[in-house]
Amino acid sequence: MINVKFIPAGIEIKARIGESLLEIARRANVFIDAPCNGSLSCGKCKVKIVEGQVDTKTNRHITADELKTGYVLACDTKVTEDVVVETIEGQSSYLAGMKIEDLSGPRDHEIFERAKAQVLDNGMKFSSYVKKDYIMIEAPTLDDNISDWDRIKRHLRNHLGYSKVFCRLPILRKLPSILRDSEFKVTITHIPRGKNRTMIVNIEAGDTTDRLYGIALDIGTTSVAACLVDLYQGKLLAKASAGNAQMKYGADVIHRIIYATKKKGLEELSHAIIHETINPLLVKMYRDAGIDKEEVIAFVAAGNTTMSHLLLGIYPDYLRLEPYIPTFSNAPFIKASELELEMNSETFLYITPSIASYVGGDITAGVLASGIWTSEENVLLIDLGTNGELVFGSKDYMVTCACSAGPAFEGGEISCGMRAAGGAIERVEINRETYDPKLVIINDEKPKGICGSGIIDLIAEMLKAGLIDRRGKLNKNLDNNRIRFDEYNIGEYVLAFKEEWDIQEDITITEIDIDNFIKAKGAVYSGLSTLITSLGMDFSIVDKIYIAGGIGNSLSIDRAIEIGLFPDVEKDKFVYIGNSSLMGCYLTLMSEDARKKLEEISNHMTYIELSVYPTYMDEFISACFLPHTDIERFPTVEKILKDNKIN
Amino acid sequence: MINVKFIPAGIEIKARIGESLLEIARRANVFIDAPCNGSLSCGKCKVKIVEGQVDTKTNRHITADELKTGYVLACDTKVTEDVVVETIEGQSSYLAGMKIEDLSGPRDHEIFERAKAQVLDNGMKFSSYVKKDYIMIEAPTLDDNISDWDRIKRHLRNHLGYSKVFCRLPILRKLPSILRDSEFKVTITHIPRGKNRTMIVNIEAGDTTDRLYGIALDIGTTSVAACLVDLYQGKLLAKASAGNAQMKYGADVIHRIIYATKKKGLEELSHAIIHETINPLLVKMYRDAGIDKEEVIAFVAAGNTTMSHLLLGIYPDYLRLEPYIPTFSNAPFIKASELELEMNSETFLYITPSIASYVGGDITAGVLASGIWTSEENVLLIDLGTNGELVFGSKDYMVTCACSAGPAFEGGEISCGMRAAGGAIERVEINRETYDPKLVIINDEKPKGICGSGIIDLIAEMLKAGLIDRRGKLNKNLDNNRIRFDEYNIGEYVLAFKEEWDIQEDITITEIDIDNFIKAKGAVYSGLSTLITSLGMDFSIVDKIYIAGGIGNSLSIDRAIEIGLFPDVEKDKFVYIGNSSLMGCYLTLMSEDARKKLEEISNHMTYIELSVYPTYMDEFISACFLPHTDIERFPTVEKILKDNKIN
Repeated sequence: MINVKFIPAGIEIKARIGESLLEIARRANVFIDAPCNGSLSCGKCKVKIVEGQVDTKTNRHITADELKTGYVLACDTKVTEDVVVETIEGQSSYLAGMKIEDLSGPRDHEIFERAKAQVLDNGMKFSSYVKKDYIMIEAPTLDDNISDWDRIKRHLRNHLGYSKVFCRLPILRKLPSILRDSEFKVTITHIPRGKNRTMIVNIEAGDTTDRLYGIALDIGTTSVAACLVDLYQGKLLAKASAGNAQMKYGADVIHRIIYATKKKGLEELSHAIIHETINPLLVKMYRDAGIDKEEVIAFVAAGNTTMSHLLLGIYPDYLRLEPYIPTFSNAPFIKASELELEMNSETFLYITPSIASYVGGDITAGVLASGIWTSEENVLLIDLGTNGELVFGSKDYMVTCACSAGPAFEGGEISCGMRAAGGAIERVEINRETYDPKLVIINDEKPKGICGSGIIDLIAEMLKAGLIDRRGKLNKNLDNNRIRFDEYNIGEYVLAFKEEWDIQEDITITEIDIDNFIKAKGAVYSGLSTLITSLGMDFSIVDKIYIAGGIGNSLSIDRAIEIGLFPDVEKDKFVYIGNSSLMGCYLTLMSEDARKKLEEISNHMTYIELSVYPTYMDEFISACFLPHTDIERFPTVEKILKDNKIN
Repeated sequence: MINVKFIPAGIEIKARIGESLLEIARRANVFIDAPCNGSLSCGKCKVKIVEGQVDTKTNRHITADELKTGYVLACDTKVTEDVVVETIEGQSSYLAGMKIEDLSGPRDHEIFERAKAQVLDNGMKFSSYVKKDYIMIEAPTLDDNISDWDRIKRHLRNHLGYSKVFCRLPILRKLPSILRDSEFKVTITHIPRGKNRTMIVNIEAGDTTDRLYGIALDIGTTSVAACLVDLYQGKLLAKASAGNAQMKYGADVIHRIIYATKKKGLEELSHAIIHETINPLLVKMYRDAGIDKEEVIAFVAAGNTTMSHLLLGIYPDYLRLEPYIPTFSNAPFIKASELELEMNSETFLYITPSIASYVGGDITAGVLASGIWTSEENVLLIDLGTNGELVFGSKDYMVTCACSAGPAFEGGEISCGMRAAGGAIERVEINRETYDPKLVIINDEKPKGICGSGIIDLIAEMLKAGLIDRRGKLNKNLDNNRIRFDEYNIGEYVLAFKEEWDIQEDITITEIDIDNFIKAKGAVYSGLSTLITSLGMDFSIVDKIYIAGGIGNSLSIDRAIEIGLFPDVEKDKFVYIGNSSLMGCYLTLMSEDARKKLEEISNHMTYIELSVYPTYMDEFISACFLPHTDIERFPTVEKILKDNKIN
């Protein structure tokens, strides 16, 4: 065994000779971003060997020069002796700095009020599925000596009309002391089902009816956002967000699923989401709001189907394999203690229902929040997370599909791509004369990479500036130091020179990156178009386009249309609706009526499996062009390109 | 810290100076019987110090001579230096050798068949509350891509008529692999509730419908008996019994309750019954029957109210304190995993309903087995365990009460008393001339003590021989070496001289023992009499007297009448019904109809709290006489005494 020390974390761990640095870092709980999970394709797990020798080599992400100065890919490096490894600044701080939509953004107040109004305007009440009642029970005597539990049941039958009352063992264990400490004046927390039945999930001494708290949680593949809600007043008492700690096992759901099939993989993934991601968020919120975890007795979580399977520790491989079958759509009754979540152990976990393997509970929750179910207009909902999920419909019908866009919109599969964290280039303009870019960088830091909205801007600007053609290939006829080609004749454009910004290396986008991104946007557009045409319609029928998900906030709709990600319709039809999944969880938590509506939505939404849809492949190939092979579909863009003299 | 070594177990443990030997033995898991739980009253925790000095003293159980040879009471001895402690032979082997009714006794076959017949004769079916169904589900396709769980629900709705199907998380976790390993041909184990609802508790690949197993368990204060049942054929596949490992924390329920109020006491008591008693029995039965624990999916347990509270880890102190309120009568839905029982984790634990703090689920189960609920005749059921529990009634009505007889019938609170294990004197005759006793000893071993049935015989014989008067005082006028008085003028009768049997000390019964026993039998008789008179009746109304519990098997009905334990009615009215509690569990396990009947029985039985019954105290005092102050109630005994010229 040898010693491996990670700096700046200062963590030391024993390792076997021949073990990979990435595995060692995972064991040591040192965060190294590894979107491709060691398949050598992403190059994101770069670290620096400060002391000692390792067994590694150059590859397409590590040049001979880099290797000389100690840079290696953690996944492609085996230890042979004691080493000191420096993780790259920005790796471990990555998660904390990420921009995550958690209902606290500048536009969220308005979005929030609109979502609540939709519920109230439809005659639904804000009354949670969890209730509290203060009950003053007659104390027992020798003549009235029924058991504590029978006494509670009798009281609820006589005073609240519940003829069937249930509880679980932990409640029974609390009864004798709490009843006597409080002189039989207690507050019960319960979940009614139907008129006469209820399930008691908590019992507290005295009158605590003014304290009823719940958690709304959105579990994204990349980021997780939560809020702590006062279930009586509807107030958000605390908010928190963080990166999904599963990221170290792969950036997208496919890599996570594959990791889950390894020995202990599923266990590690469940641990990462529960113990390394959700629980720290919960504890932080309790501290911020001054709430005891035992008081938190309601929980609604939404996530894509892979996230919900991994949360519950369910083997996810059949989501990935044809015919793409999830284990569940509606989760059964699960208690917080079964997942070791930091809240009252009896809390019933409500997981929003999913539709299919790639249309998850985040979408049903998002649809609830968006109000499509009450809309007279035809609404298209586009959720651009690590995958693209789409819904189209109105109060009369809804169809949905998923497009395998991959993680490109979160900076994945792009050599200089990164998530929307500090140092990410989020907006780009290119000077038509000099081809110099004007960058907007998150937190005004030095640039570290480019995030989804920045890539969209960049490609649109490169197209309009004539830097690339409609296939995404660089113009070889331009003589500019920002454009260069390697020995294989693959071109790249330099966004930021290292000398210019005093950074370690140039930030560039390559033709391969552009090609990857075009495929991703092509998958979304062809998904949208197939979804609409499957109904015998075209985009002219669309009255509103709702944009949800993390990318939306800093996204330029114009640029997204210019690259052919979104259809070329009137710009005022586009509405940004924020983290609609988290909003949907909030509504579900606050309103039993809304929860029922959510179930209804999930039962009535029609899922379209794109991969079996006959025209989808042709649509996709046509969409892998800027903006599209059929430029007539994008008249606005056609005009711009003509004005800029681009063919 | 010092070292304490226990022999013959060979267990060594570190201990603090000043710690008591009894506490140290408990920590080391060395069994030392301590019925009175260290209150210095029973003298049963005698051990021998083989090496080293301890801090101890003489007391009424340890003479100066004994102290010299190293004998001490473990509860009254503190360690001061390294010691070697010898536990008394018979202490640690005590549990294994105990006679426990487990449906395998010589008369059990007949009892068993009668109990089963009662169920069938009343139109109830032998069909367990747990069912198995083999289902062949359509495999998913791209066009039929609903989730695994929805697929199962659809199949059960379409083919078995269950519109509402539930499960818990562990079942969901099993689904994806089991469905695919078995090509969607699986056996589900489920618990139907009502016509349309069912709860799936297990899923297995292929057709396993011929293997459905359950456990019936009787948890006595002193002993625990179990059987493993084939739920299709009703066959007992294995039986097992053992002492209740909680005995080391006190012999009777009151001592256990007090121990439970100590720090970690409740935890230790739960551990003792689950991990040290029940789980070893279960594992033994699975081995004997060649069954995997995962196949055991039904469980019915009965115990007195204290036992059921301790089993579930519920603080029991309010059972003991006026107004004697249990926490529950009917336990909620509990899974085997919640108690860490060695069986399928999803097994639903059914605990037979109790009536009051001292009329437990062992009685309701016993009533079910006894058939009182279908009887045209008036039946009196007497269960003499560590406490006395009584039921009187017929198919039209039932009343019940508990009498605080204490553990005397199991040898407790009697200086030479012991449980019905090897070496216990179980029958006694006394020669009217010589006053020499003729002993029947369990296993024909050398005598170690006397058990309940032996004490009843002994006191009856002493009365008839004129050795004691009707107050239980020894006859001072007899000149016999078996009768002797100590310095305080307290008399004793020698049952076995040490020289005669080559044992370590004489086995004697003292006037204090006799007095204790008379109080115990007085409590039972006055309970019986109050129960009957509370209905405005007398014993002439009683058609049958059922005797249940461990004491019954070797009990002489004649002797029990002679001392005034049982009423003086025709002897052919007495029927021994064995371990009716375990039998009731078996019936509950085997027949959902019987389980419903059991619930009905528990709901309709009237509980009489003797302590508030105005005439009870007088009745009790009158009954603390041999056989009773009012000899006319015992005409048979009156005649015998007259014939023997005893007043």
